[in-house]
Amino acid sequence: MYRQATMAMTSSRDVAGPSIGGRATIRVGIIGAAGYVGGELIRILERHPDVRITGLQGRDRDHEPIGAAHPHLARTGYHVESALPDADVVFLALPHGASAALVPDLVARGLRVVDLGADYRLRDPADYVRWYGFEHPAPELLAKAVYGLPEQHRAELLALQDAEVAIVGSPGCYPTASLLGLYPLARAGLIADVVVDAKSGVSGAGRAAKAELMYSEVNESVRAYGLSGHRHISELVQELKAAGPDEGANPGAGSVGFLPHLVPMQRGILAAGHVRATRDVGAAELRDLYETEYAGEQFVEVVEQPPTTSQVRGSNVARVHVHLDERTGRIVVVSVIDNLVKGAAGQAVQAFNLMQGLPEAAGLEQLPLAP
Amino acid sequence: MYRQATMAMTSSRDVAGPSIGGRATIRVGIIGAAGYVGGELIRILERHPDVRITGLQGRDRDHEPIGAAHPHLARTGYHVESALPDADVVFLALPHGASAALVPDLVARGLRVVDLGADYRLRDPADYVRWYGFEHPAPELLAKAVYGLPEQHRAELLALQDAEVAIVGSPGCYPTASLLGLYPLARAGLIADVVVDAKSGVSGAGRAAKAELMYSEVNESVRAYGLSGHRHISELVQELKAAGPDEGANPGAGSVGFLPHLVPMQRGILAAGHVRATRDVGAAELRDLYETEYAGEQFVEVVEQPPTTSQVRGSNVARVHVHLDERTGRIVVVSVIDNLVKGAAGQAVQAFNLMQGLPEAAGLEQLPLAP
Amino acid sequence: MYRQATMAMTSSRDVAGPSIGGRATIRVGIIGAAGYVGGELIRILERHPDVRITGLQGRDRDHEPIGAAHPHLARTGYHVESALPDADVVFLALPHGASAALVPDLVARGLRVVDLGADYRLRDPADYVRWYGFEHPAPELLAKAVYGLPEQHRAELLALQDAEVAIVGSPGCYPTASLLGLYPLARAGLIADVVVDAKSGVSGAGRAAKAELMYSEVNESVRAYGLSGHRHISELVQELKAAGPDEGANPGAGSVGFLPHLVPMQRGILAAGHVRATRDVGAAELRDLYETEYAGEQFVEVVEQPPTTSQVRGSNVARVHVHLDERTGRIVVVSVIDNLVKGAAGQAVQAFNLMQGLPEAAGLEQLPLAP
Amino acid sequence: MYRQATMAMTSSRDVAGPSIGGRATIRVGIIGAAGYVGGELIRILERHPDVRITGLQGRDRDHEPIGAAHPHLARTGYHVESALPDADVVFLALPHGASAALVPDLVARGLRVVDLGADYRLRDPADYVRWYGFEHPAPELLAKAVYGLPEQHRAELLALQDAEVAIVGSPGCYPTASLLGLYPLARAGLIADVVVDAKSGVSGAGRAAKAELMYSEVNESVRAYGLSGHRHISELVQELKAAGPDEGANPGAGSVGFLPHLVPMQRGILAAGHVRATRDVGAAELRDLYETEYAGEQFVEVVEQPPTTSQVRGSNVARVHVHLDERTGRIVVVSVIDNLVKGAAGQAVQAFNLMQGLPEAAGLEQLPLAP
Repeated sequence: MYRQATMAMTSSRDVAGPSIGGRATIRVGIIGAAGYVGGELIRILERHPDVRITGLQGRDRDHEPIGAAHPHLARTGYHVESALPDADVVFLALPHGASAALVPDLVARGLRVVDLGADYRLRDPADYVRWYGFEHPAPELLAKAVYGLPEQHRAELLALQDAEVAIVGSPGCYPTASLLGLYPLARAGLIADVVVDAKSGVSGAGRAAKAELMYSEVNESVRAYGLSGHRHISELVQELKAAGPDEGANPGAGSVGFLPHLVPMQRGILAAGHVRATRDVGAAELRDLYETEYAGEQFVEVVEQPPTTSQVRGSNVARVHVHLDERTGRIVVVSVIDNLVKGAAGQAVQAFNLMQGLPEAAGLEQLPLAP
Repeated sequence: MYRQATMAMTSSRDVAGPSIGGRATIRVGIIGAAGYVGGELIRILERHPDVRITGLQGRDRDHEPIGAAHPHLARTGYHVESALPDADVVFLALPHGASAALVPDLVARGLRVVDLGADYRLRDPADYVRWYGFEHPAPELLAKAVYGLPEQHRAELLALQDAEVAIVGSPGCYPTASLLGLYPLARAGLIADVVVDAKSGVSGAGRAAKAELMYSEVNESVRAYGLSGHRHISELVQELKAAGPDEGANPGAGSVGFLPHLVPMQRGILAAGHVRATRDVGAAELRDLYETEYAGEQFVEVVEQPPTTSQVRGSNVARVHVHLDERTGRIVVVSVIDNLVKGAAGQAVQAFNLMQGLPEAAGLEQLPLAP
Repeated sequence: MYRQATMAMTSSRDVAGPSIGGRATIRVGIIGAAGYVGGELIRILERHPDVRITGLQGRDRDHEPIGAAHPHLARTGYHVESALPDADVVFLALPHGASAALVPDLVARGLRVVDLGADYRLRDPADYVRWYGFEHPAPELLAKAVYGLPEQHRAELLALQDAEVAIVGSPGCYPTASLLGLYPLARAGLIADVVVDAKSGVSGAGRAAKAELMYSEVNESVRAYGLSGHRHISELVQELKAAGPDEGANPGAGSVGFLPHLVPMQRGILAAGHVRATRDVGAAELRDLYETEYAGEQFVEVVEQPPTTSQVRGSNVARVHVHLDERTGRIVVVSVIDNLVKGAAGQAVQAFNLMQGLPEAAGLEQLPLAP
Repeated sequence: MYRQATMAMTSSRDVAGPSIGGRATIRVGIIGAAGYVGGELIRILERHPDVRITGLQGRDRDHEPIGAAHPHLARTGYHVESALPDADVVFLALPHGASAALVPDLVARGLRVVDLGADYRLRDPADYVRWYGFEHPAPELLAKAVYGLPEQHRAELLALQDAEVAIVGSPGCYPTASLLGLYPLARAGLIADVVVDAKSGVSGAGRAAKAELMYSEVNESVRAYGLSGHRHISELVQELKAAGPDEGANPGAGSVGFLPHLVPMQRGILAAGHVRATRDVGAAELRDLYETEYAGEQFVEVVEQPPTTSQVRGSNVARVHVHLDERTGRIVVVSVIDNLVKGAAGQAVQAFNLMQGLPEAAGLEQLPLAP
């Protein structure tokens, strides 16, 4: 039995039987369980009604209680092992480059894969050379992987249900926030010129100890970074281009400007998109466009006031606000997410639900935590 | 139908039928829904498997969408009304003094009451004159009310199941953190002298706009307050005295020192108890004492390292660490809670579960959120 | 004698005599002394070698010790009075609209004025109707007032030395950060299209208690605001247009996009300018342009890495970094200031120094405070 | 010429000649210039009217511009060298243990020393074995060193003016805050039993990158640490014992309880002392005692309201508030300092001023920075 410590707290789920609605329980493993994203995956999957966590893997950890890496999760009773998990589906929360070579092996073993790193997000192998500095070892799998943004790729994710090879390249946090703000414009072929100016909490920079991420360096300060090109731009360009009605519909897609900032908070991303449109568009038309595009979405809320990151903390919800600046003629789109949930672990579970034929919101119904 | 807006997200609970395990759904109302504690009650009760929220009441609010007070809860679709809710049980999250006169009326209507303010916490009516400056209007109800700290008053809370009048005086945040740290010592009659030095996040000070709670005043600063006597001392003394094997068992109970501090964070309380014992006690004995006392508790974890408030954020868990300082002979106890959950809304739901005959952890299984 | 309490600390300045270098001491007063900007004026002017503070005025304050409004300044021994100060020069730190009508009276009494509000910043009276919603009561004084950004208006400020009427309209914090970033481009007529995306600490929102500025609302959150038009845009447009070699040199000046954000910190503004140039410009040319323009400036540093707001906290220094994004062809300029110093009180003193014929850096030599 | 880059800003001091008041300029060096305390020493000494910084030393740094370690100080134009500075007086800001063996050599070269580490604070060599785990290499110098808390050891510091060997062991941040709160009681022999519960900002933990000091770990959390004995206790006991009228006057001195906490802020310490007195003492007597003891002190302010750390940020000021809790009979003392100034660099300069015969406040007149 994997979970050696018993949880003091008995969950109603344990009482309720194998699963709600008679669905079979899916055995999942997490590789890279000791980082922040790994912790969020555990937090979410532990409460997921259709899932049983059968293995957590972490580098150089040998049957280490989960509380050593994640004190707040100690009561789950899990341990982190050095061995790969025995599971139906594995989530990979590894540094960029680490999963590229691991995934072919996992696929060969018959595992289904949700990769939260960058290694299966891009379609063009050349992009890995350009943006990440490595030759991708499995270009044939790149072609099969699905970019895991359900709001744009739901059909492909659903199609993975019956696919022999199932790989989800789960999107980066910045692209998620940016794309959810820009998709309605991109689909309508409205983007003539666009700059995304994004502000992120610090957890997005990961958990490794770095001098520039120390409390005393980060607090009471804002900084811009990545001026010579943040790697997430590659996703942004790929997806913006692909979202239009045709290749050239959004002339601004290729030259999207992207400037990320680090702000003194733990979670949250706010992305502001400054857009010049390909044609005249009115405020009412814009609002309609956004409301229509997102009408059926469970996790995207179009809101009438500019949203704050605190409104979505701890949840899988994105909020999007669109505004036409009559003075300048620009469209301004403000979108917010929790970078560790909709920007990472939550979104991965959302894609997982689709590729496993589960309700899209299963395990993701937790309300935001504020203040 | 109360909930007028539909939630985009369909919860598995709505699908599953009236309630898990065939238990009848309890209709609850929240009075004072627009404050921070009110928001936490909604967040928790909305996901509670045995509950349906049938009414939210807020001062001067007339069918106002919940998102106006709590933007993060907008998707629940509730409205805040000026009328009292139609419910089986009501939670009161009101300023001190406001519920004293309201509760008799609610009781007369047959409602069961969980009061999160101070008005039904103290047993001695004279304490209201001394600490709160008002004559209690319903001393006969005071005598029937139960102090809602389940770890000390579980039997009384369970007894409310069949009581005609059910009033829970849900504890203050500081007393909860302090008492959970000190109970094992108090029950053993070990407290000869005790000082509690506590540090709280700012949400404990409530939501009303005050100059001293502005971001620019609070951030990058710590301050002590309440030196001439914080009102929560009255609970602390009452409960410490009552917890001992007999009235005089803890000579230090009456003169407990209490110094609260405001620290720049939103949630969390850390209480440090500095204790001189009534007799010699060894480190191993101490550890045993704590582990034994809390062995069966679902929400109190005795931990081997001093806990941090971030380890319990968003959850109903308390963590307690006890240490014997050999150099000085003092016992040092460090305990942490989330002031809005175990220190307020979560604890109220825990007591509610007991008084309604539900599993104690129902609706409270959410794991902490970190970072 | 105005200063009734003696400062425990004897400053070397007091010992040294009337003033360094034999310059006559200037008597200054501060109107609106109880706000954050008022506090910063006191902090700076108290240490200014050529100044004696002869009066502090605050609304509804009658000989109130300064420590009531500014506990950190208690040792200066000043009092805040309801009467106008007796002084040679007055600094006004009042809400927008309050000084418009007060200044004519002050000028009539022969006082020289540095107004830190918006009422004397704009040249076109119609702009007050459009952006501030009031008819300016003294358009003839508007024509005489100087926009107090020394890096652009030094000659005009110096000319005030001998002027009969001396009014400085000290710039807003956002325009200061934005303009110092954009001036070299504007002077060269390079701005074809520009968006400024700015991030500010909370002290810029002033000191009045507001619900949305409470710690629990601001912390762990970012929000954009002013989407329908922040008032500071009026200054930005006026100054960008005026900075070019001729009226039409910067076609993007009139349609400058401006999106401000509130981030959880007390001080600091970071402004990111996203610019499309009127012609091809190389990275080396850009760097030269900035270094040349700011070569003689004491308070503007052109830096090779994107600066952080913490690098200038508490000081009058601005840091500017310029970058050519080869991929998109855009110029990205990042500039930082302390909003209360170079964005308010410090800049006002810098302009005061010029208009009084003092060394420009007098009283402003304090180094930044970090961490 | 040491300072190779010219400061853009010309300070009035450079203009004024060698020094104010005809005093000779003292050449000072800083060893360990790259840490937070080193940075504060530079910030203060750079503006000190009687000092010229002639050398900065940092491990593995070879003529590195100061801006690499301290971006906010770049404009001073200094460089950090690997060689020891050529100076009259050196300040050592090194990790505990590093200066013990270095100081004898410095003394042999005729240098006067202010050591900001722990290596020359304790009088009893056995304390180094017990608390720091090393055999002190120069016990004969320990005997000559002066504990650099001017409020208690001013006469000894002044006596160093003519001493051949001048070593100041500058106090730790926690002992400074604690002792300034307790000295008046200790001198009066009033301490029967005492617990100090202290809260510190994070800069006190130094600048080395550590996982537990990362922003995401520290923010929104409080933690207690050092329960098994913080090293600063050794100073606390030594000084409390020595402060009394005789050895046994304060029976509580030896068993002082001390519990430090890390709170999410950069600077500041608040120490709360909970004291049982050796005899009955009234509130008025207490207040008199504190006011009398600190009447002549330039850097200690006895205040009527509990002070906040923000009131002293960036300054060398300590604020102390004393309160008699009539209910419990305990005396509660709350004291605040900026841990990097009065708790480190500022206090070192204050002691330096005394041992060099300068005005005690020279270079330390900067007012606090708030908000």
